[in-house]
Amino acid sequence: MKQIKYPLNDIEIPRQWYNIMPDLPKGLLPPLHPATGQPAGPDDLAPLFPMALIEQEVSQDRWIDIPEEVLDILVKWRPSPLIRATSLEKALGTPAKIYFKYEGVSPAGSHKPNTSIPQAYFNMKEGVKRIATETGAGQWGSALSLACNYFGIEAKVYMVKISYEQKPYRKILMETWGGSVTPSPSNETEAGRKILAENPDSNGSLGIAISEAVEDAAGREDTKYALGSVLNHVLLHQTIIGLETKKQFALANDKPDVVIGCCGGGSNFFGIAAPYVLDKINGENVDILGCEPAACPTMTRGHFHYDFGDSIGMTPLLPMHTLGHTFMPPSIHAGGLRYHGMAPLVSEILREGLMRAEAFDQVDCFKAALLFARCEGIVPAPESSHAIRGAINEALKAKEEGKEKSILFLLSGHGHFDMSAYDAYLSNNLVEYDLPEAEIERAWNAIKDLPEAAEF
Amino acid sequence: MKQIKYPLNDIEIPRQWYNIMPDLPKGLLPPLHPATGQPAGPDDLAPLFPMALIEQEVSQDRWIDIPEEVLDILVKWRPSPLIRATSLEKALGTPAKIYFKYEGVSPAGSHKPNTSIPQAYFNMKEGVKRIATETGAGQWGSALSLACNYFGIEAKVYMVKISYEQKPYRKILMETWGGSVTPSPSNETEAGRKILAENPDSNGSLGIAISEAVEDAAGREDTKYALGSVLNHVLLHQTIIGLETKKQFALANDKPDVVIGCCGGGSNFFGIAAPYVLDKINGENVDILGCEPAACPTMTRGHFHYDFGDSIGMTPLLPMHTLGHTFMPPSIHAGGLRYHGMAPLVSEILREGLMRAEAFDQVDCFKAALLFARCEGIVPAPESSHAIRGAINEALKAKEEGKEKSILFLLSGHGHFDMSAYDAYLSNNLVEYDLPEAEIERAWNAIKDLPEAAEF
Repeated sequence: MKQIKYPLNDIEIPRQWYNIMPDLPKGLLPPLHPATGQPAGPDDLAPLFPMALIEQEVSQDRWIDIPEEVLDILVKWRPSPLIRATSLEKALGTPAKIYFKYEGVSPAGSHKPNTSIPQAYFNMKEGVKRIATETGAGQWGSALSLACNYFGIEAKVYMVKISYEQKPYRKILMETWGGSVTPSPSNETEAGRKILAENPDSNGSLGIAISEAVEDAAGREDTKYALGSVLNHVLLHQTIIGLETKKQFALANDKPDVVIGCCGGGSNFFGIAAPYVLDKINGENVDILGCEPAACPTMTRGHFHYDFGDSIGMTPLLPMHTLGHTFMPPSIHAGGLRYHGMAPLVSEILREGLMRAEAFDQVDCFKAALLFARCEGIVPAPESSHAIRGAINEALKAKEEGKEKSILFLLSGHGHFDMSAYDAYLSNNLVEYDLPEAEIERAWNAIKDLPEAAEF
Repeated sequence: MKQIKYPLNDIEIPRQWYNIMPDLPKGLLPPLHPATGQPAGPDDLAPLFPMALIEQEVSQDRWIDIPEEVLDILVKWRPSPLIRATSLEKALGTPAKIYFKYEGVSPAGSHKPNTSIPQAYFNMKEGVKRIATETGAGQWGSALSLACNYFGIEAKVYMVKISYEQKPYRKILMETWGGSVTPSPSNETEAGRKILAENPDSNGSLGIAISEAVEDAAGREDTKYALGSVLNHVLLHQTIIGLETKKQFALANDKPDVVIGCCGGGSNFFGIAAPYVLDKINGENVDILGCEPAACPTMTRGHFHYDFGDSIGMTPLLPMHTLGHTFMPPSIHAGGLRYHGMAPLVSEILREGLMRAEAFDQVDCFKAALLFARCEGIVPAPESSHAIRGAINEALKAKEEGKEKSILFLLSGHGHFDMSAYDAYLSNNLVEYDLPEAEIERAWNAIKDLPEAAEF
C-alpha cells in the first residue's frame, strides 16, 4: 500500500474565506445600473440580497470569518477529501502525479452547498423567511433547498420546465429537503404569464426562470433572491475548497504545478484556484487552467465587455468575458456550464494573464470521464468531466516531456443524477457540436452598444 | 463549533479482517449437500468459487490478512467516516449521542464493494477471467462490476427483469464500469429459457436470476460465481466496517452502548456488529440490534432451520433463520432486504442471545429517513432507513429514561438511485404491508421436511 494515506482529510477546517479583491493588481470594475449606466451601489442590491452578503460583494478585507453556525453544518462533510488518482496515473503511464479534490461528498453531491449554507444563514440572520431562486439542471436548487431547510427558511425554486420534466429525481431531491419546486415558465409571476401567453408550450430557459425568481423576491417583503455562481460573494464562499487543498498538499509534502477546474459561471473553478492565484500574484510559478465547453466558449471565443447577467436584460451590467446575453448554447449534458458569461472575478484574472483557458468538446470530456470512472470508481458529473479532460491532457503532455509534475484538478460533483448522459455516450448517441462563427458574431453584435469594460 | 472534529477519518485502515468463527460459543453448523443431506465440503463449492474464498468460508483463524492489492483500492474511499448526527439529536431533543458510520462514500454508494473488491481479487489470482452474478435492485451488480473492472475480469450480471426496466440508471452505472447486464429470465441459460417458455412475459425474480448465474458459472471453465451477502467469507470482508468504527470511537473517546444495522442477507449488519459481538462474548455490556422489514420478518417471525439459499432449491442447505425459500415478500422499496433467510453467522449470534431483532414497517422507516435527510443532509437508501428507525427509537427511549447513552448505527448506503421511493412517500403513495399469518405458515410448512438445524 502507498506510504501516504489517501484520501487526505486530517486537517482543520478553514475558519475564514479568502477574499481576492485587495490582491487584484488592478482591482475590479464595478457593476453598472442597467437604467443609468452608472456604478450600482449597495442600495441597488438591497431588495434582492441581505446586507451581509452585499457587504461581502464589495468588501476589501482579505480574510472574512466563517460564522460558527455555518461551520457546524459544513463539518458534516468537510474537509472534503484530496485523493491521489493512482489508478488513472497508471492507466495513462504518466510520470505526473494526479490529485483531485472531491466535492461530491456533500449531501447535494457538488460544491454548491459551500455557498448555499452561508447564503441561507445570512438571510436567516436578517429575518428573511423565504428565498426564491432558479435552477436549470437542479444542482443549485438542491443545494439551496438543503441549506434553507437547516435555517428554517422556505425555499422556492423555479426550475426550467424541460429539466423539471426530464430530471424528476432532482425535483424529488429538492422536495425531500423541503424545497418547493415550480416548473418555469409558471402562472405565478408576470414574467411567466407573459411567456405562457405567447407560447403555452414553452420549455422554459434559465433566463426566464431568473426573471421569475427575481420578480418573486422583489415583490415580497419576506423574500430575498439567491444566486449559485457569478457574484463575488458566491465565489468568496467557494474559496474554502482551495484553502483546504493547500493544507492537504502540505500534509502530502507536495504542491501542484498545475491547478485545473471546469468553468460555467466560474465559482467552483475560482474556489480551488483563488489561493493559487494569490501565489501567482506573489511571483510563484503555477499554471492555472480553466476548462469550458466548446459549445459555450465564453473565455476562449467571447469578449471582455459589460453585459447583463441574465438572458433578458434585467440585472445590473457586469464586466466579464461574455458571448452576449442572447447567446443560446446547444443542449450539452453539462447543463451547469451553459452560461453566456463568466464571473467578473474569473474574467479579471484571465484578463490579467493570471490563468489560461481551454475549450473541450463534450464527447472528449465523456471519454475522459469514463476512463476516470473505470480507474478511480467515482462517476463524475458531466460538468466536472471538463476538468478531467484538462488534467488528462496535462498528464499526457508531462509523459511526452518526461516531466514529474504534480497536477491538481477539482472534481466538483458526482454524476448520479446524470446517468442518462452516460447512457448516451455509451450508446454512441452523444453529439459533437460545431459552433458556427456566425452565431458567435450575432450574439456579440447584440451587446456591442453596451458600455465597454475598458471605460472605467 | 463542536470540539471534536467530525467526520472522524484520521485512522489507519485495518489490515486484517476479523473472523468470528473461533469465538462463537458453539461454533457454526455446516452447510449440507442438497442431494445427500450430508455436510458439504470445499470440493462441493469448488466449481463456483476460487479456493481462497472457500478457505475463508471455513477458516478458524481469528485474523485474516487483507491483501495489499485490495487495500490499494479500498483506500480510495476508506476509512469511511464516522459522523456524529448532532442535528438529529437536537431535533429529537434526546440526551443520547447518535453516531453513524457512512458507507455511501464508496463509488457504488454502499458497503458492497468491501467484499466485491476482495472477491474479484481472489478470483483474478486463481486465473478466473469472468464472474457471473445476479442482482435485484442493482447494488450488488454495481459493486461487482466496479470490482471486476479493477482486476480485468469480465462481469456478467443477470438483473431481475422488472428492476432492469424500472431502474435504468443502475444498469447504466454497471455498464459505465464495464459490466455486461442481461435482463433475467434470459435466453442465455437453460433455466431462463425454461421460464420464458412457460411465461414469455415473466418479470423475473432473484431466485431465477441466481439460477441463471449459477448455471452460467458452473457451465464454463473460465467463469466463477459471486454472491453479495449471506456466506461467511462475504460477512468476513465486511468486518472492516466495525474494525474502523472501533478505532474511530477511540478517537472520540467514547464507545457505543447500542450498535444498530439493517438486515437483509445480514452482511452490512454483521460488518459493523462483529467486533462488538466479540466484546459481548467477552462479557462487555453492549446492546446489538438488527432491524428488518415487517414485510420480510426473517428473524422476528421465521424459524431457525436448514433451508435453501435460493428460491428454487439448487444451493446447499444453510442453517439459518428463514421464512422458507418459497416465501415471496411484498414489493417494498428496500429491495436489498427482501430475502427469505438470514446469514448463518447472524442467525447463530441471534440464537445465542448475542443480539436482538426488531421489525419495522416501511412507512415508519421512510418517516425516519426523511427526518434524517432534513437533519443531516444525506438521503439514505431505503434499506438503511431501517437502521435509522431503530436508532431514532433508541434515542427516544433514552430521552424518556433521561439516559445519556451512545447510539451507533450503520448507514449502509445513499438513496440517489431510489428517489422514486421518496416520491412515493412524499405523495402518500407508500403502502403499509400487513403480512398475514397464513402466508408465514404456508412458507414454513413448505420447508418443515428439510433437516432440523438442531440435529447437528
